[in-house]
Amino acid sequence: MAKTRKHNYKKKAGQAPGTAIYTGEKTSEKLFIEAFDYNETEFREKELSHISEAFDFKSSNSKTWINLNGLNHVKDIEKIGQHYGLHPLVLEDIVNISQRPKIDEYDDYLFIVLKMLYYDKDEKIISEQVSFILGKNYVLSFQESEGDVFDTVRDRIRQAKGRVRSMDSDYLLYILIDAVVDYYFNIIEILGDKIEDFETEIFNGQARDDVSQNIQNLKREILRVRRAIFPLREVINRIEKCDNGLISKNTLNYYRDIYDHLIQVTENIDIYREMIWSLMDMYMTTISNKMNEVMKVLTIMASIFIPLTFIAGIYGMNFDNIPELHYQYSYYILWVVMILLFIGMLFYFKRKKWL
Amino acid sequence: MAKTRKHNYKKKAGQAPGTAIYTGEKTSEKLFIEAFDYNETEFREKELSHISEAFDFKSSNSKTWINLNGLNHVKDIEKIGQHYGLHPLVLEDIVNISQRPKIDEYDDYLFIVLKMLYYDKDEKIISEQVSFILGKNYVLSFQESEGDVFDTVRDRIRQAKGRVRSMDSDYLLYILIDAVVDYYFNIIEILGDKIEDFETEIFNGQARDDVSQNIQNLKREILRVRRAIFPLREVINRIEKCDNGLISKNTLNYYRDIYDHLIQVTENIDIYREMIWSLMDMYMTTISNKMNEVMKVLTIMASIFIPLTFIAGIYGMNFDNIPELHYQYSYYILWVVMILLFIGMLFYFKRKKWL
Amino acid sequence: MAKTRKHNYKKKAGQAPGTAIYTGEKTSEKLFIEAFDYNETEFREKELSHISEAFDFKSSNSKTWINLNGLNHVKDIEKIGQHYGLHPLVLEDIVNISQRPKIDEYDDYLFIVLKMLYYDKDEKIISEQVSFILGKNYVLSFQESEGDVFDTVRDRIRQAKGRVRSMDSDYLLYILIDAVVDYYFNIIEILGDKIEDFETEIFNGQARDDVSQNIQNLKREILRVRRAIFPLREVINRIEKCDNGLISKNTLNYYRDIYDHLIQVTENIDIYREMIWSLMDMYMTTISNKMNEVMKVLTIMASIFIPLTFIAGIYGMNFDNIPELHYQYSYYILWVVMILLFIGMLFYFKRKKWL
Amino acid sequence: MAKTRKHNYKKKAGQAPGTAIYTGEKTSEKLFIEAFDYNETEFREKELSHISEAFDFKSSNSKTWINLNGLNHVKDIEKIGQHYGLHPLVLEDIVNISQRPKIDEYDDYLFIVLKMLYYDKDEKIISEQVSFILGKNYVLSFQESEGDVFDTVRDRIRQAKGRVRSMDSDYLLYILIDAVVDYYFNIIEILGDKIEDFETEIFNGQARDDVSQNIQNLKREILRVRRAIFPLREVINRIEKCDNGLISKNTLNYYRDIYDHLIQVTENIDIYREMIWSLMDMYMTTISNKMNEVMKVLTIMASIFIPLTFIAGIYGMNFDNIPELHYQYSYYILWVVMILLFIGMLFYFKRKKWL
Amino acid sequence: MAKTRKHNYKKKAGQAPGTAIYTGEKTSEKLFIEAFDYNETEFREKELSHISEAFDFKSSNSKTWINLNGLNHVKDIEKIGQHYGLHPLVLEDIVNISQRPKIDEYDDYLFIVLKMLYYDKDEKIISEQVSFILGKNYVLSFQESEGDVFDTVRDRIRQAKGRVRSMDSDYLLYILIDAVVDYYFNIIEILGDKIEDFETEIFNGQARDDVSQNIQNLKREILRVRRAIFPLREVINRIEKCDNGLISKNTLNYYRDIYDHLIQVTENIDIYREMIWSLMDMYMTTISNKMNEVMKVLTIMASIFIPLTFIAGIYGMNFDNIPELHYQYSYYILWVVMILLFIGMLFYFKRKKWL
Repeated sequence: MAKTRKHNYKKKAGQAPGTAIYTGEKTSEKLFIEAFDYNETEFREKELSHISEAFDFKSSNSKTWINLNGLNHVKDIEKIGQHYGLHPLVLEDIVNISQRPKIDEYDDYLFIVLKMLYYDKDEKIISEQVSFILGKNYVLSFQESEGDVFDTVRDRIRQAKGRVRSMDSDYLLYILIDAVVDYYFNIIEILGDKIEDFETEIFNGQARDDVSQNIQNLKREILRVRRAIFPLREVINRIEKCDNGLISKNTLNYYRDIYDHLIQVTENIDIYREMIWSLMDMYMTTISNKMNEVMKVLTIMASIFIPLTFIAGIYGMNFDNIPELHYQYSYYILWVVMILLFIGMLFYFKRKKWL
Repeated sequence: MAKTRKHNYKKKAGQAPGTAIYTGEKTSEKLFIEAFDYNETEFREKELSHISEAFDFKSSNSKTWINLNGLNHVKDIEKIGQHYGLHPLVLEDIVNISQRPKIDEYDDYLFIVLKMLYYDKDEKIISEQVSFILGKNYVLSFQESEGDVFDTVRDRIRQAKGRVRSMDSDYLLYILIDAVVDYYFNIIEILGDKIEDFETEIFNGQARDDVSQNIQNLKREILRVRRAIFPLREVINRIEKCDNGLISKNTLNYYRDIYDHLIQVTENIDIYREMIWSLMDMYMTTISNKMNEVMKVLTIMASIFIPLTFIAGIYGMNFDNIPELHYQYSYYILWVVMILLFIGMLFYFKRKKWL
Repeated sequence: MAKTRKHNYKKKAGQAPGTAIYTGEKTSEKLFIEAFDYNETEFREKELSHISEAFDFKSSNSKTWINLNGLNHVKDIEKIGQHYGLHPLVLEDIVNISQRPKIDEYDDYLFIVLKMLYYDKDEKIISEQVSFILGKNYVLSFQESEGDVFDTVRDRIRQAKGRVRSMDSDYLLYILIDAVVDYYFNIIEILGDKIEDFETEIFNGQARDDVSQNIQNLKREILRVRRAIFPLREVINRIEKCDNGLISKNTLNYYRDIYDHLIQVTENIDIYREMIWSLMDMYMTTISNKMNEVMKVLTIMASIFIPLTFIAGIYGMNFDNIPELHYQYSYYILWVVMILLFIGMLFYFKRKKWL
Repeated sequence: MAKTRKHNYKKKAGQAPGTAIYTGEKTSEKLFIEAFDYNETEFREKELSHISEAFDFKSSNSKTWINLNGLNHVKDIEKIGQHYGLHPLVLEDIVNISQRPKIDEYDDYLFIVLKMLYYDKDEKIISEQVSFILGKNYVLSFQESEGDVFDTVRDRIRQAKGRVRSMDSDYLLYILIDAVVDYYFNIIEILGDKIEDFETEIFNGQARDDVSQNIQNLKREILRVRRAIFPLREVINRIEKCDNGLISKNTLNYYRDIYDHLIQVTENIDIYREMIWSLMDMYMTTISNKMNEVMKVLTIMASIFIPLTFIAGIYGMNFDNIPELHYQYSYYILWVVMILLFIGMLFYFKRKKWL
Repeated sequence: MAKTRKHNYKKKAGQAPGTAIYTGEKTSEKLFIEAFDYNETEFREKELSHISEAFDFKSSNSKTWINLNGLNHVKDIEKIGQHYGLHPLVLEDIVNISQRPKIDEYDDYLFIVLKMLYYDKDEKIISEQVSFILGKNYVLSFQESEGDVFDTVRDRIRQAKGRVRSMDSDYLLYILIDAVVDYYFNIIEILGDKIEDFETEIFNGQARDDVSQNIQNLKREILRVRRAIFPLREVINRIEKCDNGLISKNTLNYYRDIYDHLIQVTENIDIYREMIWSLMDMYMTTISNKMNEVMKVLTIMASIFIPLTFIAGIYGMNFDNIPELHYQYSYYILWVVMILLFIGMLFYFKRKKWL
């Protein structure tokens, strides 16, 4: 991770501001553009082979969603930017994938950046940046690579499910963001499962030695998710307060709904954070308990046999005059004494609850 | 828990917004609807066999409380929603039981979600979502399943106890919420008892090995309670600031009273949180103290007998020429030396306060 | 404590709001009412045998302070409430002793609840709820039982000390609250002494095994005091902002003075909290240090004598052919070797700073 | 410390508000009053033998600084108070040395209390309360005892260095406060040195057993300094917002400069706080590391010699029939075996990195 | 470090405010002044041999950037200050290198102080103070010594890259600050690498004994960086709110961009802080785990051999009557018993998962 990050920053440092430079790693991604053009009654879907085809849609009266995959194709993105009159800083931010979720309000469009989070097959969190431009009857979306969480949105447009075809572009933006936020619930759910697994593992004493590093990794994962999601609350909040007429009063309730979901997600994340901090405590306690047990065994063994060995040592001495050595039953008496000692010790440790 | 949660989220993901889908587990719950219709002089109570019977009450001049149990009956809830003109998002939130306590202000009604908390027989916290719709002279309430904390409210309506019959529907909502909040005190009280039990247990050294997990569980329980109760403060606060005429100035004092209660409850919860964090510390100290004690016994035993055994070993050697072996009283002298050593050691450890 | 609390809450749960119910334990307390009626020149003090005698004072032109002890006499308090036109919620709060310090502003009176804190002879903190009603030229005060911190106030009224006789009832309220706050300084002072005692005890190694529970108890005591005092700051703050004419601009400076005192008290409490958290750390360090010392003694004893005993064991073997056994001076040589070993070990441990 | 504090509080408790009572310990301090009277061209400095001499200066057109040492002379201070028309609460606060830094705005003067901090020869922090009255063309300052940080100010007035002679009394107040704040830098610097000393000590393993108490003491010292300095930021902030014409717009920049210095100081203090918390962690780690080392030595010694001693014990047995005893070279063979065992053990511990 | 700091503060203490005194260590730095004068079409670059040459540029219509290295040349800086009409406090702050990042708004110029951070070859963070004066069509910058992060800015001016030549001086200030902030990303990246190195080291058990001090050092480094960067956010925020006409609405978007970058940087720093706190936990766990392992070896060795040695001791006793000694096969039987004991022990420890 560190290597990658270094790479990215280096690429950008020293560039004039407003210079669009792709800072990600997927430099050989194919450009893929799809356009959805619809109104209440009609609907057109098209995969675009060239960027210039996208320009026709702007003029149309219907609502348009243009989705572009492949941020490495900076030139094409700049062309779209010119066509839609986007500020150079916006273009720079679209292709700079280390953005923090944010919203920039311009006179005739809104620029929104957020993070799409999903788990890949190895249960590793993938974080991908998605940028949205919301304009009068159009939404542009920019993704790093193919594969996203928008299939339900596409279906709804195609099949005129729900309200999407009859509502404005601000509603389209809403269901796009809503689709992203829905996936956050998956993330927190899997995080929750991981924490519970650790708990079970630690409590059952099956914790492997690398558990503390795994906890540390989980901690970092939670921090990353937190960082991707928390600023989005503020973004949604500011969407609700936009006054350039792009967000109609009608859809505000929907954005408020997203906001509520985000509060729920972030609250869960904070609970996980707290729980993972105390997991470490629990693990430390387990270690201490184990050491305690080891100590007890050692103490019991040593405390019982050390005095007995001493006694045996006494009668192994070679003094000429040790009267006990010559009594007929002293060996048996000694055994009795030692067994009594042994039993006494056991009782003592029993009373101390060490056994 | 994790499994359930996953299940719920999955059910909802990918649905168009405003689609009401029950996200709980009690899918075979029977529908139960009861209606209270009253004014200062008259009073009618009825269990409804069909949802449509509920519609008559709206038109009546009197105040009405319709209470519905069984959120799995989404269709019936949607019918009520249509009748009372509720927003689709409201219906979605009513049946989605993973809501956070919140308030949504609409033009002619208030929508309030909160969590009813009570302990079942096994002292496990049960959290059930209750939604309220406060309209001009009616209150609707929606619960997941039968059994609630509203019996005192029912009695007061039936027997015209207190002011409820002479006041408006905003007062009815108040005593409903008040009944929920009253139960929170039970919760914090039982939480307090549990913490004290842990303290006693830990301090008396009776702590079982699973105490750290039990503490972790209690921590999580407190976090859950906290999450259910904290947002309600904000909700009550916003009720007081509503300006759509549904809350009369007269009842504001009562809502302020609930607010004070909530502050008390949440303060207690925060104190419990702090106390439970230091419980873990206390437990760690207990473990360390125990290990210390074990170490001392070991050290004392070993330190006393190891030198004595060494001496015995010396005179067990088979050298031809060990003059001491042949003196008549050397065996007795040796015993004296060893006993003196033994006593000296005891004194040393006494002085070190290890005995 | 838990038992008491449970009792109290139970008593109240399920009651209609605005029902005055005493929630404390002192149910057999005698009713005691005293009245002070004064102006700049005249002064009357009277112990009232019946509640109705109190009603004459209201009409008089002079300033009146009526002090009532015995919150279990709910009926009498309700009579006063009717006479002075108090809201039912106010009466409920007066006799519900688990209130948080708060202020409620009504049209013609202020209702203030706070906690009187003092140590009893066993240095246990006693917390008693005191409620004040400030009206136009009268102050009512309600206490749970006899014994309070207001003797200096009584003396000042009787002897016309200071300004009290020439000022309005808002000044009387001020000196009453000031008397309560003065006692808070005693509390924090004794808390400070306790913390220092713990510190000394822990540092001198005299800490008994129950020190961690005592620290826990002290922590809880500080939390309780904090909870009793912190909200009062807000109360005083809101007194300063009251605009119903009951607080004259003249006395505002005095309330600001109380506010400054409260800031001082609460700052001290927060410092104590921080110090007590690190006390636990200190104690843990002490335990670790002790265990370290124990370990060292064990290690030194074992490390010195185990090799020596091994050597003795060697020459206790019964092999036919051990040439060393038959040399004349080998026994003495062995002693020299062992003593050298012994000294060498001591040097080694000395160098390691274990001795 | 505790004893002193108790004493102070006791003295004040139960007194009528507005009663000036000296709460410090230096009850036999001599009264010392000096007056500086100056304008741009003239300058007069005088030590006053009696308080009444101070009264002449007020009427003069020039700027006046009257500095009084000896807060135990309450009577004299009250006389000044009457002459300059100070509120009784102000006089009470001047002589009550347990004030928190604060500002009180009156109609024709500002009252400012702050803490002068400096180290005495034993590197103990001395905290002394200084009160300032800023009026139209005069500044009064009150100190507990002789010795202060204002010598540079005196010099600047005497020698007309800088702007002081040409500016108004608000500038004089500024340089007085500035002189106090300059000394705060000394304090944080010495605190920083102490922390570094602890770090070095702990890291080099030279930490004495009382290090945890010393750290605790340092923690407390930092808390005290923090408490003395933090509120001053708010005071300066409120000076800037005063609107009674005593602070000219011209000097505002200077007060802002003090504010910046205070931010710097308080930031440093917070960093020190954080560093000292982790010092304790470091110390705990050191202890654990040491115990680890002790354990290793013990384990190595015991693990090596216990099996060897067992072997020696075997051949010290007196069975009639132990064939090995009678082979000629078995003693030598045994030595070889034991040396091999010894070396094998060493290798094992080497591989485990315990050696 | 401490020594240096002390030195600096001492130098300044007791000076009249507004006295410019260099507080750094580089007292023998050569004075270096360069000037860039440009408009959209023309461009002049000049190294100035004397401060007075700088004065010509002010009058010119073009935009001017004068960059001065060598804060020890206080006299020259004062001359520039007089020429540009800077307030004495500004001059004092420019040469006092212990400033916190801040902005001071004057009538016809802005004064901004910030910290330039970069790593030297030894990966030690170098922090150098840079002050900017932004006036109508000029920017002055002051640095402590040669070597800075502005080379890309110089290139852009020389080669008319980007917009710099066509925009106003507020844009020039922007790209200067942007260059500084770009380097912050390097810092956090290297900090991130260091943390990861520690993690790897600790997890692989290669942590040297000084790791806790290294972590402490890193903690302190992060605190220093934090302190240098955090206040800058507030500075940029206040730049955006300046209303003296020096910042055109046009460049506000650019400053907002810097703000976003700073948020990103500071978020990373806070994540690092949290991670480094848990590193210490991880290290403690590693130590505990190691000690546990050592304990186990000791316990196993002792527990196995102590009873065996006891048995050998028994039969080394010299009693006349020990029948076992005389049976022919008792020696062999004993070996079998002991081997069985040995194996039994191994099984026991295996079951306890200690092996």
